Amino acid sequence: MLFPQLIPEDALAKEAEHIKGFSGEVFWVTQGGERPLGIRLALRPTSEAVITPMVAMRARSHRHLPVKYYQVVNIFRFETKMTVPLIRDREVLTFKEAHTFHATHEEAERQIEEAISIYKRFFDELSIPYLISQRPEWDKFAGALRTISFDTIMPDGRTLQIATVHDLGQNFARAFEATFEKPDGTHEYYWQTSYGISGRVIAALIAIHGDDIGPCLPPRVAPIQAVIVPIPKKEFPQNCLLDYVRVLEERLRSKGVRVRSDLREDLTPGAKYYWWDRRGVPLRLDVGPREVETNTVVVVRRDTGARETVALERVVAELERMMQKMQADLRARAWAFLRENVHQPRSLEELRSLIAERRGVAEVPWCGDPDCGQELEEYSEAKLLGIALDREFETEQPCLVCGRPTRKVARIAKRY
Amino acid sequence: MLFPQLIPEDALAKEAEHIKGFSGEVFWVTQGGERPLGIRLALRPTSEAVITPMVAMRARSHRHLPVKYYQVVNIFRFETKMTVPLIRDREVLTFKEAHTFHATHEEAERQIEEAISIYKRFFDELSIPYLISQRPEWDKFAGALRTISFDTIMPDGRTLQIATVHDLGQNFARAFEATFEKPDGTHEYYWQTSYGISGRVIAALIAIHGDDIGPCLPPRVAPIQAVIVPIPKKEFPQNCLLDYVRVLEERLRSKGVRVRSDLREDLTPGAKYYWWDRRGVPLRLDVGPREVETNTVVVVRRDTGARETVALERVVAELERMMQKMQADLRARAWAFLRENVHQPRSLEELRSLIAERRGVAEVPWCGDPDCGQELEEYSEAKLLGIALDREFETEQPCLVCGRPTRKVARIAKRY
Repeated sequence: MLFPQLIPEDALAKEAEHIKGFSGEVFWVTQGGERPLGIRLALRPTSEAVITPMVAMRARSHRHLPVKYYQVVNIFRFETKMTVPLIRDREVLTFKEAHTFHATHEEAERQIEEAISIYKRFFDELSIPYLISQRPEWDKFAGALRTISFDTIMPDGRTLQIATVHDLGQNFARAFEATFEKPDGTHEYYWQTSYGISGRVIAALIAIHGDDIGPCLPPRVAPIQAVIVPIPKKEFPQNCLLDYVRVLEERLRSKGVRVRSDLREDLTPGAKYYWWDRRGVPLRLDVGPREVETNTVVVVRRDTGARETVALERVVAELERMMQKMQADLRARAWAFLRENVHQPRSLEELRSLIAERRGVAEVPWCGDPDCGQELEEYSEAKLLGIALDREFETEQPCLVCGRPTRKVARIAKRY
Repeated sequence: MLFPQLIPEDALAKEAEHIKGFSGEVFWVTQGGERPLGIRLALRPTSEAVITPMVAMRARSHRHLPVKYYQVVNIFRFETKMTVPLIRDREVLTFKEAHTFHATHEEAERQIEEAISIYKRFFDELSIPYLISQRPEWDKFAGALRTISFDTIMPDGRTLQIATVHDLGQNFARAFEATFEKPDGTHEYYWQTSYGISGRVIAALIAIHGDDIGPCLPPRVAPIQAVIVPIPKKEFPQNCLLDYVRVLEERLRSKGVRVRSDLREDLTPGAKYYWWDRRGVPLRLDVGPREVETNTVVVVRRDTGARETVALERVVAELERMMQKMQADLRARAWAFLRENVHQPRSLEELRSLIAERRGVAEVPWCGDPDCGQELEEYSEAKLLGIALDREFETEQPCLVCGRPTRKVARIAKRY
């Protein structure tokens, strides 16, 4: 779907918590041409306030439920802090947001589980590791009952929120008087969820797998998986070299490998290596006179620089194998980095120093009391990511602040 | 590419004609949170003012030219007239705009020819007929040297602009001091073009091929080309019918036909007919006991209602044939309608009455003088579409207003 970008102020204000949460960071359109508008129009910071009333017009009966919409749009936040390209933009690009409407809370909760499993698969495809946490009350999406977040750890030790999933309960439905007719003829408010990811995922992909030269794309999602670079020699016939390149390219393309040959004549092979490395292409295929004579190709991995000589007749299978290996290596390395940067400090002092040293995420026992939570944030000068939802074990330690017994583990980190 | 949506007022104002042309219809963002912004930000009415300076940073040498960018975005016009869904929206959706930068005017002009031929192919695929005209000086894109427009004639006799192509000359480059280095080391302003189409094309597609029930999509672009509707009978085994439907669907799908079976149990066949007719699916395939017994299927065309019984073993070829025929018929019918609605009045009175009767487009000899052009507009109470560019012949009649000799033909119509 595509819903309107401009949201009249009265619509945005219907859900009280929602407007309170967003009003400080909304861009307002106040003039059309040279005339003042009768009502201020918000550049959408999020779309619940336009989607909810539309669904209420279309899905009047339980038989029309569930309704599941999604759109890919830009959203706006008037950030007063320093902006960071792809990470903290005022215009957030390619925000992929889902909005779902259900007859019962149980069904909405199942949708939330499904959203979480979709995002897990998505980030696994990208080899981006994640921590799943339930945000504390004071850091939920404005208007939600519950916000679940995916965070990753960036190379500098700060965390980046890369996806969120919200249980909106009936809050928006109530504000917009959005109801459906149940089988027994009575009316009830919808149960809603929303969840989304943005261009930030690209920032995570670049930062986590990249190096000082540029990005290194996981083969499964790389638009170009392999680039062929001919290495001409004066004494060797150019035709012969280019024919071999053509055969190689065609063989790979016909088997579904996303391949390109770099035949530009004004660049040296070295300049081409750098060009494609900077663009993150996973595999480079070097072809010189020796390769032509021996019916081979030299394959170089973008991430490790490792070289292998491969026979032309086996090149498709060998490339598939190398790409699978590279995909697995990137994933293993990224997860190892994440795990190395999650710590369990045993005292508030330890918590404070590991945050100060930018050593990633701290996991500590927390009773769940907001006072203790705020104390954790203030003392560490960091933010709660929330309660860990993806740990196989619960804690047996008491709350790090008040000493009361608990089973919950809170995560704390410097965040982007 | 994706360029920013918010354009600071000073950037939009750099090209004087440009801001003059757009300022009356720009939405202005003036507040961020509750604070006034230091400078007003326009919701992009078009993107020259953000793309030109960006290209100037990236393409400093003739070796980097031509540069060709395109983006799919929403654009905004503060329309004071009545809005019309898909035709005159304040938020124009899926605007597909190209921006090109060249070293010479000749190269830019070749790009314009290419753009025109791309749009011809595009509209031919959609079976949408068009008139190509060069807009008069007073109706060019603000900042352009020349604007070429594709217009179609809607069923009510009014024309709809469905694509525009602009020769921007060096106007924007000059305003933004956007230059490149030539081979001889001197600097020159870029020669620019821009061209675009929007969601209006969908409006034209619906209006031109549709009827009172709904749209009728040309088979080549229909997301679903054929829908199979089983027609159960009490005395006939349901399994047997559904197996046959499955075989039919699989056979079509395996050959690339975009097909769907409607197996809903709570709708009658008649309700399903209506459902799919309203969605414009080109072919309906009815399957009842008789078809199962004779290994046939009844194919019904959305546009004419014509029915054919087709043998299952030849169904793929027959459907391909029928879809080609339907595509050609839709195109022929649409072009015939357009041609019937283009007239050559011999006097101003004739011009005025045919416009008053909403009989489409008038073509009249015009000397090109703006005074005569304005006279044509005022007398007919209609608008000049501009000079016909797609006529095989030139006129030998004198200008309809002043009687001076001319070869040019102007088009005049009531426009959306």
